[in-house]
Amino acid sequence: MAHLVSSTSCSLKISTTNKAFPQRSGHGPTAFPSSWGLQSSRIPYESLVSRREKHQRNFIVQSTAVPLNQQVPTQAGSSSYQHSNGSTKMQRVMIIGGDGYCGWATALHLSNKGYQVAIVDSLVRRLFDHQLGLDSLTPIASIHNRLRRWKSITGKNIELYIGDICDFEFLAESFNSFEPDAVVHFGEQRSAPYSMIDRSRAVFTQHNNVIGTLNVLFAIKEFREECHLVKLGTMGEYGTPNIDIEEGYITITHNGRTDTLPYPKQASSFYHLSKVHDSHNIAFTCKAWGIRATDLNQGVVYGVRTDETELHEELNNRFDYDGVFGTALNRFCVQAAVGHPLTVYGKGGQTRGYLDIRDTVQCVELAIANPANPGEFRVFNQFTEQFSVNQLAALVTKAGAKLGLDVQTTNVPNPRVEAEEHYYNAKHTKLIDLGLQPHLLSDSLLDSLLNFAIKYEDRIDKKQIMPSISWKKVGVKPKTVVA
Amino acid sequence: MAHLVSSTSCSLKISTTNKAFPQRSGHGPTAFPSSWGLQSSRIPYESLVSRREKHQRNFIVQSTAVPLNQQVPTQAGSSSYQHSNGSTKMQRVMIIGGDGYCGWATALHLSNKGYQVAIVDSLVRRLFDHQLGLDSLTPIASIHNRLRRWKSITGKNIELYIGDICDFEFLAESFNSFEPDAVVHFGEQRSAPYSMIDRSRAVFTQHNNVIGTLNVLFAIKEFREECHLVKLGTMGEYGTPNIDIEEGYITITHNGRTDTLPYPKQASSFYHLSKVHDSHNIAFTCKAWGIRATDLNQGVVYGVRTDETELHEELNNRFDYDGVFGTALNRFCVQAAVGHPLTVYGKGGQTRGYLDIRDTVQCVELAIANPANPGEFRVFNQFTEQFSVNQLAALVTKAGAKLGLDVQTTNVPNPRVEAEEHYYNAKHTKLIDLGLQPHLLSDSLLDSLLNFAIKYEDRIDKKQIMPSISWKKVGVKPKTVVA
Repeated sequence: MAHLVSSTSCSLKISTTNKAFPQRSGHGPTAFPSSWGLQSSRIPYESLVSRREKHQRNFIVQSTAVPLNQQVPTQAGSSSYQHSNGSTKMQRVMIIGGDGYCGWATALHLSNKGYQVAIVDSLVRRLFDHQLGLDSLTPIASIHNRLRRWKSITGKNIELYIGDICDFEFLAESFNSFEPDAVVHFGEQRSAPYSMIDRSRAVFTQHNNVIGTLNVLFAIKEFREECHLVKLGTMGEYGTPNIDIEEGYITITHNGRTDTLPYPKQASSFYHLSKVHDSHNIAFTCKAWGIRATDLNQGVVYGVRTDETELHEELNNRFDYDGVFGTALNRFCVQAAVGHPLTVYGKGGQTRGYLDIRDTVQCVELAIANPANPGEFRVFNQFTEQFSVNQLAALVTKAGAKLGLDVQTTNVPNPRVEAEEHYYNAKHTKLIDLGLQPHLLSDSLLDSLLNFAIKYEDRIDKKQIMPSISWKKVGVKPKTVVA
Repeated sequence: MAHLVSSTSCSLKISTTNKAFPQRSGHGPTAFPSSWGLQSSRIPYESLVSRREKHQRNFIVQSTAVPLNQQVPTQAGSSSYQHSNGSTKMQRVMIIGGDGYCGWATALHLSNKGYQVAIVDSLVRRLFDHQLGLDSLTPIASIHNRLRRWKSITGKNIELYIGDICDFEFLAESFNSFEPDAVVHFGEQRSAPYSMIDRSRAVFTQHNNVIGTLNVLFAIKEFREECHLVKLGTMGEYGTPNIDIEEGYITITHNGRTDTLPYPKQASSFYHLSKVHDSHNIAFTCKAWGIRATDLNQGVVYGVRTDETELHEELNNRFDYDGVFGTALNRFCVQAAVGHPLTVYGKGGQTRGYLDIRDTVQCVELAIANPANPGEFRVFNQFTEQFSVNQLAALVTKAGAKLGLDVQTTNVPNPRVEAEEHYYNAKHTKLIDLGLQPHLLSDSLLDSLLNFAIKYEDRIDKKQIMPSISWKKVGVKPKTVVA
């Protein structure tokens, strides 16, 4: 009757230069299954570089506090900053949760841009898949093979620390070994439905996320006080108020007096609530200890392909389409590919901010390149476009038709507790001001989403598509098997 | 090198009718130390009743949803409510943390008023004293002796469940055994300085408080969905905004649109933050599950005597004056009694809401007697008067002079991170509207505070008075002994 998902606590440090994992050279054959079609999907490194250069014409890094080199480095360059004493040092970025969906794409992107990158991950996300009987649409390699492949293709080393950040001894060792200049913290249980499976998952989510983040804050204070924390929050922290959503703060005039205060939070799952808790904890430590932090309130991420992951199938990112971890648009594309009706929850008027995963990695880099000041708790709303669920369904239907797919839509009972028709207008100008060049959904839908779903159609498990977790029915009895 | 304070997990249920603890009769001698002066402090039960009757002339319970008997019962009466089917049942109130400062006074008060009371407590608060080398000014009996004494004096039984609410198996057993109609949740680590001792205490505080409250919410949902949660929050959740503080919510007009949203929170310790997290979690479950909840954002409580505790010294409440658990006013009175200068932190302009512990117990009873509706998350600001620290020092100085005490004041470096001069105007009308009749500080200072401090002067440990915990210096190294 094992039921509570617990993170691993080992503090094994593995780097791709470790003797136990001899460095591979070139693009030679590996133990990777031949069924993954490595030959067909391998993209010459040269073509990546040219794509990247094209991309960079629109990509301007504005440096405010810690100046980066004016131009973002391409292949062999290194992202560096100048110390106050005049010396130049490569920027060292620790990515907690770097084996996950956003984390993996970010790790590769920053490594490619010349940052010194370390991934810190307990790999518990992979355990969730095993326990719930889920799998990524895309086949994903082990983190060890991912990093070996990255090294063999690019010559770049990404360090790896495997352990649980709720174990402070492990986290302290990672900090003192890697000495990060920035920490990007994706290392949280990130699914709202997962947090609503049963009591033990609700408790796990809040404990894991809140205590993990507390530990990161203490580690920065104790070991790397100048280190910039880039924390992934969520637009879901705000809920759906009947007024415009600002970026983190709102100026209120009340009874003749005025103050700028944290924007009120109305989260609607134990997961979203855990991010609200984190935001409050981080804001306090910025004020009390002078921590410099950026909270990226991210919208719903879609897409799977980034410049770096498409270099080799062993660098594939994960793509979740199931009812637990699959975000709305990814799920719709998989449904369209297999002829399953798009499952609109309730009336479908639920409106949220969305962004392409290629913009996630851009945004994180922009935040790192333009760090918050000491003591500053900075909040960016990280999304590029707003859609209602009905609008998404219409877009997927239209795009499917271009591929000859007959896409139907069905309204299913909403498993969540949320407004299904509401006002929604969220500001998102701060990252644009820093130079974000958005990928728009209309351009990405076919090439980065639907075609991907069709390519991996034979891996789709239709049983995983329907929602199986109810906000109202969550109970105290451990669910050992979901649905 | 033991360092992390962990709650006990045993699930022993002890009630005062348990055969293992034979009921004592009358006021006869017990094993209680004679040095406690039981003879001199014992107050005839008759005099209590007359005091209570006098008090009740000003005490009107207005019933809105679940009608109580019109008159609050005195000795043998029972607080009851009518079911929708017309039957009448005694109200059963579970008090989590009922062995603590506010919890003990509330448990006795409600028991005396005719409620069926159960105390749920891990007793970890007593462990904190042992570990930190602290002690209550007043000698306090064990919870077992407290309850035996209460039964022997009044004939009333208070059930006792000893265990940790973070252990859901224990909490579920307590719920299913006692079947509460209301849960009053004081069962949290409640000291801001304690939460700032070191990393492990910060983590303990947030884990203990957040997970404990999550468990209570799940227990209500699963076992007692009609049960009213009365949760102790704190005025410290709001911080010190430059606008008026409302009771839980604020109506904001922004860019031409209007909504009523949760009041923005700016807590300033890991303890205060834990209460903010609780408030968000509870609000969500009210909306998602229909939980009925009242969040009592309490000010700083002062005083030690309530009608019930003064019946017998074995019913004494605790009185903390140390730098960790002592609240400002209690600490000042002890300092005045022993000739120690009043320690004003920083400039002393810090203004907060304050209330007499006799009003704490009134407020909780008013909340129980007028429960929130299903799905309602109701917030009351629970305090009666506002004072700055400098104003408190002046009041204690003046009152001390009447007793012939020469009271000095000294400004010490502020161990906290907080504004020392600020606007502060917090609303607190909702409990007044329900019938709260405040005890004002000017009337209580001499009889319930200074005289108490003088009475127990020989128990005062002057080493515990000064602040020993710094908000800025909190570190990751476990502090096994706090200065």
